[in-house]
Amino acid sequence: MELKQGDTIGILGGGQLAQFLIIAATKLGFKTVVFDPSEKSPAFRLATKYFCEPFSNKEALKKFSKMCNVVTYEFENIPISAIDTIGSNCTVLPNIEALRIGQNRFLEKNFAHSLGIKVAAFSIITDSQDLLNFLKNNNQCGLIKTKTSGYDGKGQMLIRGPKIKSEVLHMIETHECIVEEFLEFESEVSIIAARGYTGAVNTYDPSINFHRDGILISSKVPAEINRNIKLELALIAGKILDSLNYIGVIGIEFFLTKNGLIFNEFAPRVHNSGHWTLDGCLINQFEQHIRAISGWPLGSTKRHSDVIMTNIIGNVIDSKINGDKSIYNYGKDEVYKGRKMGHINKII
Amino acid sequence: MELKQGDTIGILGGGQLAQFLIIAATKLGFKTVVFDPSEKSPAFRLATKYFCEPFSNKEALKKFSKMCNVVTYEFENIPISAIDTIGSNCTVLPNIEALRIGQNRFLEKNFAHSLGIKVAAFSIITDSQDLLNFLKNNNQCGLIKTKTSGYDGKGQMLIRGPKIKSEVLHMIETHECIVEEFLEFESEVSIIAARGYTGAVNTYDPSINFHRDGILISSKVPAEINRNIKLELALIAGKILDSLNYIGVIGIEFFLTKNGLIFNEFAPRVHNSGHWTLDGCLINQFEQHIRAISGWPLGSTKRHSDVIMTNIIGNVIDSKINGDKSIYNYGKDEVYKGRKMGHINKII
Repeated sequence: MELKQGDTIGILGGGQLAQFLIIAATKLGFKTVVFDPSEKSPAFRLATKYFCEPFSNKEALKKFSKMCNVVTYEFENIPISAIDTIGSNCTVLPNIEALRIGQNRFLEKNFAHSLGIKVAAFSIITDSQDLLNFLKNNNQCGLIKTKTSGYDGKGQMLIRGPKIKSEVLHMIETHECIVEEFLEFESEVSIIAARGYTGAVNTYDPSINFHRDGILISSKVPAEINRNIKLELALIAGKILDSLNYIGVIGIEFFLTKNGLIFNEFAPRVHNSGHWTLDGCLINQFEQHIRAISGWPLGSTKRHSDVIMTNIIGNVIDSKINGDKSIYNYGKDEVYKGRKMGHINKII
Repeated sequence: MELKQGDTIGILGGGQLAQFLIIAATKLGFKTVVFDPSEKSPAFRLATKYFCEPFSNKEALKKFSKMCNVVTYEFENIPISAIDTIGSNCTVLPNIEALRIGQNRFLEKNFAHSLGIKVAAFSIITDSQDLLNFLKNNNQCGLIKTKTSGYDGKGQMLIRGPKIKSEVLHMIETHECIVEEFLEFESEVSIIAARGYTGAVNTYDPSINFHRDGILISSKVPAEINRNIKLELALIAGKILDSLNYIGVIGIEFFLTKNGLIFNEFAPRVHNSGHWTLDGCLINQFEQHIRAISGWPLGSTKRHSDVIMTNIIGNVIDSKINGDKSIYNYGKDEVYKGRKMGHINKII
């Protein structure tokens, strides 16, 4: 399959990632349709057409999918049932298997482990006994995470045993959870990679990332990590993409510990830690994703500038920002704690 | 005046330049409304709202202007009467005086000449006698141009006297025309400059431009011209902008002859020869224009990459283009001779 001028790309989710995907798709001559339940979706502003419907509305999903030559998604918490409905009319990329694994922390860690990629110790917990057992073997320390639906630090809780707080018990009782070894890490790094129709893989320079309260605050390229680690990141990315028979862009996060790289998670989509590519590369991650799912040759990932990307979180954007930085205002009307309102790329 | 998130920018004209302005406006958190008589305007795809009405529809223009915090235009052949109508409700930038001069080759050359900027010899012609007189004094050679409405080589005719062809006579009889000295030039260069609310001016690196049949084919930065010429270009740009009390981006074209720089024309808007900034600078000409008309500080014009920009003219775009170049497909359905369908930026 190879999309041509005037063809339509469907996007599930209408946030800022969808906006950037629309801009890239438009640049390449494609039309776009966005599907999102929220009437305040910022991407509705730019989309050629949009559906403001819940993901449970099968009729709307069918109508949407019939308008599209290919469908993709901007976040991984799309119900699999919606993908199934769309998939009967239209190709969905990245494929449903990548999404299924990416949605579930347990499957994700098992998957990475099965490929020989180092992961933190982890275990499913269904009751407090499971948890106590895990803590006993891991210095009474662990990170509880819901199996699904977590992002930006949501659905995570750090615990230090052996005493277990009631809120932790509540979380275990109400959600399917896993517990993970709490790692002492030196830094968090990520890599944005892409795989095209021909199976060709390429990667952007890895970034070093800084988080607060589980939310990405900033990413910097080049990351000050040694060359072998960079090589290892690219090799792991290739292994994951090939193994999933993946088409599109993926973001993969790691902890860098004194024992080397430890896989944390992947997002089967464009990723916040790749926003630096908007001003650091000729072909940014969004265009790369559109090129990949359109059956086009992948773009160059060469970096022409060193960049620090800083998120604007939970604050109104100051319009008086100097013109030596590139500001991205996502156009969200409501500001609230932890909400990503925009980001700034600064050339360093 | 300083625009803030959620404010609306009106754009007259819905071609590719409007599309790029919309993307820049959206990036900075603004909404957009486009006004264009053609239902096939590519910018309608991206605009928050649009009016598909003739520029003579005063009611529509009033309604449009009431939705906007500021109005700008993507091409200079907007009827002045339309600007007058809009101007009673809303600021139009660049100002009407710049537009009036930019629309009229005779006023434009007089204006440049009055600032002490070198221009080719020129004269108004109303009949064949005027023309014969001019040719006699200029080696029987001249370029006839309509006073208004010319772009991309339209409304121009090269003549070699003393015999005057009937088509030339017809042009003189049916249009207000000027005749210009035909220059032997070494190259054509242009500069993209901006002036903000505070009167601050900055300029991008000048490009060297290649034309065919009066249409820009490609632009290259850096231009291989000497440093003093570059300095002179920036100084002339500043002089023109200050003198017009201009706000926004301007494109100014020159001939480089063995006697130095000769002013050709300016476009009171973003300009095709500045498309390289999309991939050569942190802040491109479109964002620069939006920043200027929004009362924001101007952006950095520093060039991070050397670029050759090539227009795709009158041809369907080949989607198989390699990913080491940045391609822009304007999404126009109809291809015809001389029509700009897209462009390619190549890092060199």
